[in-house]
Amino acid sequence: MSLVAIKNQVAGLFKRSNSDEHLARLEEPLRNNQTPYGSMNDEERDRAQDAMAEEAIISASKNMGNDDDDENEGGFWNRFDPRVMSDIIIGLSDGLTVPFALTAGLSSLGDSKLVITGGMAELVSGAISMGLGGFLAAKSESEYYHNQVKKEKLGFFKRPEAVNQEAAEVLFEIGVSEQTIASFLKDLDTTPKNLIDFVIRFGKGLEEPAEGREFTSALTIGLAYFLGGFVPLLPYFFCSVVKTGLIVSVIVMIVTLFIFGYIKTSVSLGEDCGVHKKFIEGFQMVLTGSVAAGAAWSLVFLIDN
Amino acid sequence: MSLVAIKNQVAGLFKRSNSDEHLARLEEPLRNNQTPYGSMNDEERDRAQDAMAEEAIISASKNMGNDDDDENEGGFWNRFDPRVMSDIIIGLSDGLTVPFALTAGLSSLGDSKLVITGGMAELVSGAISMGLGGFLAAKSESEYYHNQVKKEKLGFFKRPEAVNQEAAEVLFEIGVSEQTIASFLKDLDTTPKNLIDFVIRFGKGLEEPAEGREFTSALTIGLAYFLGGFVPLLPYFFCSVVKTGLIVSVIVMIVTLFIFGYIKTSVSLGEDCGVHKKFIEGFQMVLTGSVAAGAAWSLVFLIDN
Repeated sequence: MSLVAIKNQVAGLFKRSNSDEHLARLEEPLRNNQTPYGSMNDEERDRAQDAMAEEAIISASKNMGNDDDDENEGGFWNRFDPRVMSDIIIGLSDGLTVPFALTAGLSSLGDSKLVITGGMAELVSGAISMGLGGFLAAKSESEYYHNQVKKEKLGFFKRPEAVNQEAAEVLFEIGVSEQTIASFLKDLDTTPKNLIDFVIRFGKGLEEPAEGREFTSALTIGLAYFLGGFVPLLPYFFCSVVKTGLIVSVIVMIVTLFIFGYIKTSVSLGEDCGVHKKFIEGFQMVLTGSVAAGAAWSLVFLIDN
Repeated sequence: MSLVAIKNQVAGLFKRSNSDEHLARLEEPLRNNQTPYGSMNDEERDRAQDAMAEEAIISASKNMGNDDDDENEGGFWNRFDPRVMSDIIIGLSDGLTVPFALTAGLSSLGDSKLVITGGMAELVSGAISMGLGGFLAAKSESEYYHNQVKKEKLGFFKRPEAVNQEAAEVLFEIGVSEQTIASFLKDLDTTPKNLIDFVIRFGKGLEEPAEGREFTSALTIGLAYFLGGFVPLLPYFFCSVVKTGLIVSVIVMIVTLFIFGYIKTSVSLGEDCGVHKKFIEGFQMVLTGSVAAGAAWSLVFLIDN
């Protein structure tokens, strides 16, 4: 990055967002449920609504089937499977902080070999606990989902009106008219599978879990924890004086945590979230790691003396 | 619990669920999108559909406003705030396994004081990392949500047809007819706030985060981790021989992990999930903790010898 680019990015951190002001001006009409059409008589409004609905339906039906366009847009990180990226982030978030803090704490006892032994024990404990624990949790989450689907299906054959009622409640809450609800229910009456899906997804807020990914997911999280936790441990292998090991470990981790926080933000919020946000998240990761490491070091120092 | 009750519960573990067979028989018609009405001519079917839709709407409108009835039903654990319970579960899940495994590993070095020092360092590291890390993550999640809402609102005033199109896409996917979509969009045209809410909740799958709970949530998770991690550490305070400490710690943790897994299932799946499921989850927690502790102990033993 050139110096000018860095300067521009840092300057961007302090600029007030224009869209905030724009939004503030728009909040008021939205609160009063005003539409952007301006004043119209009833007939004009009716025609405008019809035209808009028709247009929306045509565009929507054109757009169906290539729904995953959005995901391929944007930055470098979107080229990877988002579920794998999310697993790596989960593993690294813990793996970069807890083992760092623990090894920093143990270093206060003044024995490099002890730091390495304790650190390795922590890496194995954490990786297995997160990996195996995550695997079993994902399994039971998926079981829960299928149980709910089963319940809903059985319920549909026992009392189809109950499922209809649940769907109607969801639509009522949104503020849809009774007439629309009636035609909605009639539409889905010929496809009960879709009706049940609708109630489960939007009424109960349950998403279908990714089937068969439990094992890969657990392995990814566990490995990410292990590899992340290895970073702060590495300097102690090469420094015979434990204090030097600690200092190198702290420097390495400040850089690593910042980079991780920065990249994590790009991945989870997309490239368009702004450099400002990424910098803040980077600093927050450094803060979390430093506070934990500082507290662990101080505690061990107090116990030991 | 009486002996008979225990016997019945254990017997229940091996009974094949009746509802599974029932479901298998029903899956077939559902796959073919058959309705439970049996055979009817078009007019009869139309009348039946109308009657059912009307009934569903009447029941739904009666049921609105007392939506939280469901949550007060069921077991003992539902009396507590589910968000607090969920935070406690998150904290305990890690707090009961990682510190247990680490202290078991360190005990292999044969020094009780070292186990306590290392264990305390781990508790502080983990509690701060989970608490502070969770706090910052919740903050940025809430920021992300409000950013998305802002984007959607700005987008609505710039191009209201885009929001309409997104809503239409959601409905299309469910399999609703164009006519219903048109009347849906017309209904919500007078309440753009609801339309935007619909797109954010059902189109983008974002739920409004609990505002102002970040701090309480972080504190609860951190405290639960700390207290959970204290359980396996406690025996080492009272046993001068580290091997005795390890044995007591393992026994205490097998019981604790089982109880935690059992209660966790009651809380997250509700009392009606069956004793079978709760037993399995209890054993799975014991398994996770034991594997992690065994691996950590073996590793430290190998490094030390």
